[in-house]
Amino acid sequence: MPDLSEYRQLARDMSVDAVALVPGPNFTRALGKAFMSHERPFVVVVPAEGQAAAIVPNLELASWGLVGFEGAVFDWRDQTGYDDAFTALAAHIPIRSLAVEGQVMRVFVSAAFTLALPDLRIVDGEREISGLRSIKTDEDIAALQAAIDISERALVRVIADVRVGQTEKQVEQALIQALFAEGAESLAFSPIVAAGDNSARPHGKARNDYQIRTGDALLFDFGARKDGFAADITRTFFVQDVSDEGREVYDTVLRANKIGFEACRPGVTAHDIDDAVTSVLEASPFADRIRTKTGHGLGRDVHEAPYIMRGNHQKILPGMVWTNEPGLYALDSFGVRIEDDVLVTADGCRSLTHFPKELTIIGR
Amino acid sequence: MPDLSEYRQLARDMSVDAVALVPGPNFTRALGKAFMSHERPFVVVVPAEGQAAAIVPNLELASWGLVGFEGAVFDWRDQTGYDDAFTALAAHIPIRSLAVEGQVMRVFVSAAFTLALPDLRIVDGEREISGLRSIKTDEDIAALQAAIDISERALVRVIADVRVGQTEKQVEQALIQALFAEGAESLAFSPIVAAGDNSARPHGKARNDYQIRTGDALLFDFGARKDGFAADITRTFFVQDVSDEGREVYDTVLRANKIGFEACRPGVTAHDIDDAVTSVLEASPFADRIRTKTGHGLGRDVHEAPYIMRGNHQKILPGMVWTNEPGLYALDSFGVRIEDDVLVTADGCRSLTHFPKELTIIGR
Repeated sequence: MPDLSEYRQLARDMSVDAVALVPGPNFTRALGKAFMSHERPFVVVVPAEGQAAAIVPNLELASWGLVGFEGAVFDWRDQTGYDDAFTALAAHIPIRSLAVEGQVMRVFVSAAFTLALPDLRIVDGEREISGLRSIKTDEDIAALQAAIDISERALVRVIADVRVGQTEKQVEQALIQALFAEGAESLAFSPIVAAGDNSARPHGKARNDYQIRTGDALLFDFGARKDGFAADITRTFFVQDVSDEGREVYDTVLRANKIGFEACRPGVTAHDIDDAVTSVLEASPFADRIRTKTGHGLGRDVHEAPYIMRGNHQKILPGMVWTNEPGLYALDSFGVRIEDDVLVTADGCRSLTHFPKELTIIGR
Repeated sequence: MPDLSEYRQLARDMSVDAVALVPGPNFTRALGKAFMSHERPFVVVVPAEGQAAAIVPNLELASWGLVGFEGAVFDWRDQTGYDDAFTALAAHIPIRSLAVEGQVMRVFVSAAFTLALPDLRIVDGEREISGLRSIKTDEDIAALQAAIDISERALVRVIADVRVGQTEKQVEQALIQALFAEGAESLAFSPIVAAGDNSARPHGKARNDYQIRTGDALLFDFGARKDGFAADITRTFFVQDVSDEGREVYDTVLRANKIGFEACRPGVTAHDIDDAVTSVLEASPFADRIRTKTGHGLGRDVHEAPYIMRGNHQKILPGMVWTNEPGLYALDSFGVRIEDDVLVTADGCRSLTHFPKELTIIGR
């Protein structure tokens, strides 16, 4: 039986009757297996007192058997629907309040709870539930490091082959193939490969109809997934040549990135780090090009706590991993972002990413 | 400006003040661009009367500019949060009722609406909103066909290299690489490569520690994504040898699959098709191995309407695409599934998948 005691304790701490988990990073962590959900409600309910129970789509029962779950299981079939399973669970575990993962649970699942229990108080426990993942174990860090190493090896391969005249889409496809060739189990997210003006879009999509030109900035933001953990790395290169402005912007972003490392040690807050990093950008001639916060936590999810931004006074603690990704974006011109994955240690931090950050010209 | 008139009309038909779209298949269809959302609410609200409005994360504004959206935009920054944007939108478009995509919108987004508008009535409009995608255009079908063709070429490559002694995981990774090599933009879903007893799990995960053996069933359920559309194909092979039972089960599933094609023509219901297919399985000696419905709609999402199951009296209409995927699963022994992607035509249907379905021995 998976150990669900942390979630049980969390229900007590949050003064709710139970915590609900749906397929996603917390579910995988708690149950030890990843599941798909699609159109089918699939929920584990961990009460403050007593045994957990689960609502499981019937066709998943064969895989569910591998979990070793010992609580009551209410399965349901597509043909008859899931309402009865929620009603049976509600009768089995009397709950009046339920903490859910607000960023994972979808509205049709919360509606199914409400239909079965019209007076149920549903609380968004995203911060608390996902917060249990903030401090990484040694095993977590090893998986993260593996995902990062795969990603960096893929990037080495890909930049060696970049040539003027290729489309962004061609380079993106080469990156994806390199990631799998290097051992990725899947992609942490749909990678960003953005040249020229597209690099000024923080979430630019690779274009089929844009050919890379001399002087372009070329931004890669990508990551492999390995053993359930996601890498998230950004490097920005220049193709064949770099303008004085490009160089100056790059140097500014790199200084901000370095300040991020210097500002990071146990006891400071997420606010402090973002403030230190963003202050470098604000003091530069490019302050009007700031579009994003410094970064976010990284682990089973690509974006998770702690969010590294002003106003977030969450304490930074040993074992947290966060992305240090300052950037400057000039619309219709170019953007630069440099992103490292940073592990907080007992007395400071260390980078899990090792790819060089000096301004690099590629595509010769 | 994207044409949102269908969604406006839908709000009227559903007697709600507006329809909300969040990043996902409907959003991409309506706006013409795909966006990520992660921890950031991102919503387009299309009212029954008047112009649409959007809540957009500030860092997405540069990409949002490509959409050509002409309505009011309420952007918000990570540092200050999104509550004010919802309040401003609520003041701009007076809504008392809102249809949302229940299987796409997450609880934290519906909670943000409720915080801004405590009396708002939120209706699950998943069926109606996603229903607008059920009848595929010629362009949709071309993209689906491209995704399917890529997937089939990848499978040809992979089965040629399967050998006894390989792990499921090795074959899965070879499949993923072949998909990208053949032109996939991304994976429609995390592929299933399951041998022996694992093939009896409808959603089995490839194992690192299971080596393929002589006589194993080897099930592939996978698909490429291309131009926003997802393929979804299953073939089950036998490795080097097949038992009499394996052959008999395979023949039964293949007969059920063929009956699915015969039962499909405009005007019948999803119930009728599942009933015809499942009746073949029920009349066989393997009735106790039935675990799933016949299939589901396929398009921008891997699972969408129409769900091909008894009790669903939705009419099957020309232009719909659905998966014909009967299967039989004997726990701890083996499973067989054969899945085609079927386009409903004016007078019947035709398969978009062309990979042979005769029982095939591989791994020699």
